[in-house]
Amino acid sequence: MASSIFSDCSSSTTARLLPFNKIRSGVLQFCRSVPLHSRTANPSLIRTTTQRLSTWSTVTVAMTTETRAKVIDGKSVAKQIRYEITGEISRMKDAISIVPGLAVILVGDRKDSATYVRNKKKACEAVGITSYEECLPENSTEQEVLKLISGFNDDPSVHGILIQLPLPCHMNEENILNAVSIEKDVDGFHPLNIGRLAMRGREPLFVPCTPKGCIELLHRYRIDIKGKRAVVIGRSNIVGMPAALLLQREDATVTILHSRTKNPEEITRQADIIISAAGQPNMVRGSWIKPGAVIIDVGINPVEDAKSPRGYRLVGDICYEEACKIASAVTPVPGGVGPMTIAMLLSNTLSSAKRTHNFK
Amino acid sequence: MASSIFSDCSSSTTARLLPFNKIRSGVLQFCRSVPLHSRTANPSLIRTTTQRLSTWSTVTVAMTTETRAKVIDGKSVAKQIRYEITGEISRMKDAISIVPGLAVILVGDRKDSATYVRNKKKACEAVGITSYEECLPENSTEQEVLKLISGFNDDPSVHGILIQLPLPCHMNEENILNAVSIEKDVDGFHPLNIGRLAMRGREPLFVPCTPKGCIELLHRYRIDIKGKRAVVIGRSNIVGMPAALLLQREDATVTILHSRTKNPEEITRQADIIISAAGQPNMVRGSWIKPGAVIIDVGINPVEDAKSPRGYRLVGDICYEEACKIASAVTPVPGGVGPMTIAMLLSNTLSSAKRTHNFK
Repeated sequence: MASSIFSDCSSSTTARLLPFNKIRSGVLQFCRSVPLHSRTANPSLIRTTTQRLSTWSTVTVAMTTETRAKVIDGKSVAKQIRYEITGEISRMKDAISIVPGLAVILVGDRKDSATYVRNKKKACEAVGITSYEECLPENSTEQEVLKLISGFNDDPSVHGILIQLPLPCHMNEENILNAVSIEKDVDGFHPLNIGRLAMRGREPLFVPCTPKGCIELLHRYRIDIKGKRAVVIGRSNIVGMPAALLLQREDATVTILHSRTKNPEEITRQADIIISAAGQPNMVRGSWIKPGAVIIDVGINPVEDAKSPRGYRLVGDICYEEACKIASAVTPVPGGVGPMTIAMLLSNTLSSAKRTHNFK
Repeated sequence: MASSIFSDCSSSTTARLLPFNKIRSGVLQFCRSVPLHSRTANPSLIRTTTQRLSTWSTVTVAMTTETRAKVIDGKSVAKQIRYEITGEISRMKDAISIVPGLAVILVGDRKDSATYVRNKKKACEAVGITSYEECLPENSTEQEVLKLISGFNDDPSVHGILIQLPLPCHMNEENILNAVSIEKDVDGFHPLNIGRLAMRGREPLFVPCTPKGCIELLHRYRIDIKGKRAVVIGRSNIVGMPAALLLQREDATVTILHSRTKNPEEITRQADIIISAAGQPNMVRGSWIKPGAVIIDVGINPVEDAKSPRGYRLVGDICYEEACKIASAVTPVPGGVGPMTIAMLLSNTLSSAKRTHNFK
C-alpha cells in the first residue's frame, strides 16, 4: 500500500509488551471461569445459541487506564462452537445413524501442511467427525490427485473434501480444486460457491471458513453489521474477497483495500468494522482506526523476538496495543480468528452431512 | 438510501433544460464529423483500436461558461464497436466459413421485452450475427423453456443464448438461467461466470454486458482506473455487483453503496469514478460529486414531462446538469451506457464463436 507502515509497532522492550500480555492473560482468566463444557447447556444449532454468549459482549478485559477495547475471544467462541457441533453430531448419530466424514488430501512433505492436517484430524476426532486422510508424495501426478478426489466424490461416507494447499508447483491448483464436487466443497473455494455468495437471491452451499469465522465472531458478540461502514484489507480468494461479500450480504457498506490503494488509512478511519487479511505485521496503527471501531485481525505474522524461546512471536496485521486504546473490540493474535477457521470447517462438514441426509 | 434525494433536479422550465440539449447536440455534431464508418479504418480487435479513439478523450463539448465536463458518448463508441465487430465477423467468415449465432428466448407478451428482443435481432443482423428467436406464450411451462435451452445448448450454430427477462412469475428464473451452457452464457449471469469474475487468477468466459460496457467506455476514453477510488451505486446481480468486481480487477479501490448505506453522498464525494445503477431519477446531485470525477450513469428513468410529445422524458440516476458543472466526464442519458449494452452482447457472441472455433 502506498503509505503503509510495515514496521513492528511493538518496541522490543519488555515494558511495551506488557499491556499486550496483560490483556491476553486477563481474557484467558475470564474464559476459564465460564463453564463452556458444562453438560447442562443445551447443544442446539450454532446460531440459535448466540443469546447464551451475550454475556461475553459486555466483558471488558483487565486493562490499564489507557486500554478500553473488548477482546473478541475467538479461542473461547471456537470452543463453544465445537461443543455445539459435538452435540449435533451426537443427535444425528442417535437419530439416523450417520456420522459426518471429512477427507483431507495432502500432497508433498511440507512440515507446516502436515501440522495443519494433523490439527484438522484431531479437531474432527474431538467432535465426532470421521476423518479420512490421504497423503501423496511430492512427485505425484495431477491425475493421481484427481483420481483420489473422484473416489471421495463418490464415497457416501465422505461429506467434505479438503485439499491442503499449497499444492506442489507442477500441479494446476484450479483444475484440482474444481474437481471437488460442489456438494462436498467444505472449503467453499469452488467458483460456483463464490458466484452464489456474490449474487443476491442465491445461496452458496458453503462459505470459506476463515471469513465465515470472522462474521460468526461479529454475530456472537452481537456487533451490528447492517448499515455499517466496513473495510476489508486484502482481496485474496480465500479471505478478503469472500469476507467483503459476506459483509455486503449483511447490508454493510463495504470497501476493499489492496496493494494499489492510495492512503488506506484515510479509508480505514471511516470504518465501523475492519477485517484485515493483509499479512503485514502491525500495518494498521492506532491512527488508522476510528474511535469505537470493531477490529477483526486475520493476519498471523511471525516477527523476530529475541526474548521468546522460539526466537519469534506471532502478531496480526493490526497493531494490537494501539488498537486496544481506540477500538471498541479487537481480536487478539493468536487466539482470535485462528481457532475459528477449523471450527467453521467442522461446521461446514456437519452442514454438508445434514443436507445430504436431509437432517434438520 | 438514508439521505437520498429523489426529486427531479431539472426544473420543468425550458430554460433549465437548454444546457442539457445544447451539450447533446454539441456532441452529436462532433461525432458526425468523424468518419467512423470509413472503410479505410482497419477493423481489428476491439481493444486494439482504443488509440484511434483517443481524440475523443480530449474533446470538450460546446458548453456554457458553467459547464466543463466531457460527454462520454456511448452512442458513438457503440457504433464504432459494432463497426469493428462487423469487420471481425467478415474476417472469420472469409477464413473459416463460420458466422456467430445468437439465440434469444422470449416468454410471454410484454411489449417492452418484445421491443428489446426486436432491437437485439436488428443489431445482430446489422453486424452479420445470425439470430434465432423463439417466442413462447405466457402460460408455457418451465419444462418447455428448459427444452428449448437444451436444444440451443446442443446446436453448434448457436454461440450465445439469451433469456429475455423478466420471465413469467410461475417460472424459476434461477433454474432457467442455470440451464444455459456456461460456454454460451453471453449474458454472463451464470454463477460460475460471476464466481470467476470475483476470483483473482480466474477468468470468466463472459462478463455481463452492461457493466462490461461501462468499463469499455472508461477504456475508450483512456480514463485511468488503477489506484482510483471508485463508487458503485446499486448492488444488482446484473449491473452493480459485476461492475464493482470489474473495477476491482482493474485495481480500483471500490465501495458499493446500496439502499442501507447511510449518508451515501459523503462516500460518493470521495470517488474519482462513480458508476450509478440505482434506478432513482437524478439521485446523485452535484454536491455528491468530487470535482473532476468521472461519472458513468446506468440509470434510465422516465420522469413526467408535459412538454414532451410522449408525456415523459428519460433521465439517469445522476443530475446531469449539475454533474456537468463539477465532473470531468459524464455519460448522458440516453446515449451513454444504453447503446453499449447491446454492443457488448454482440461482442460476447463474437468472442464465444471465436473461442469455440479457436479463431484468433
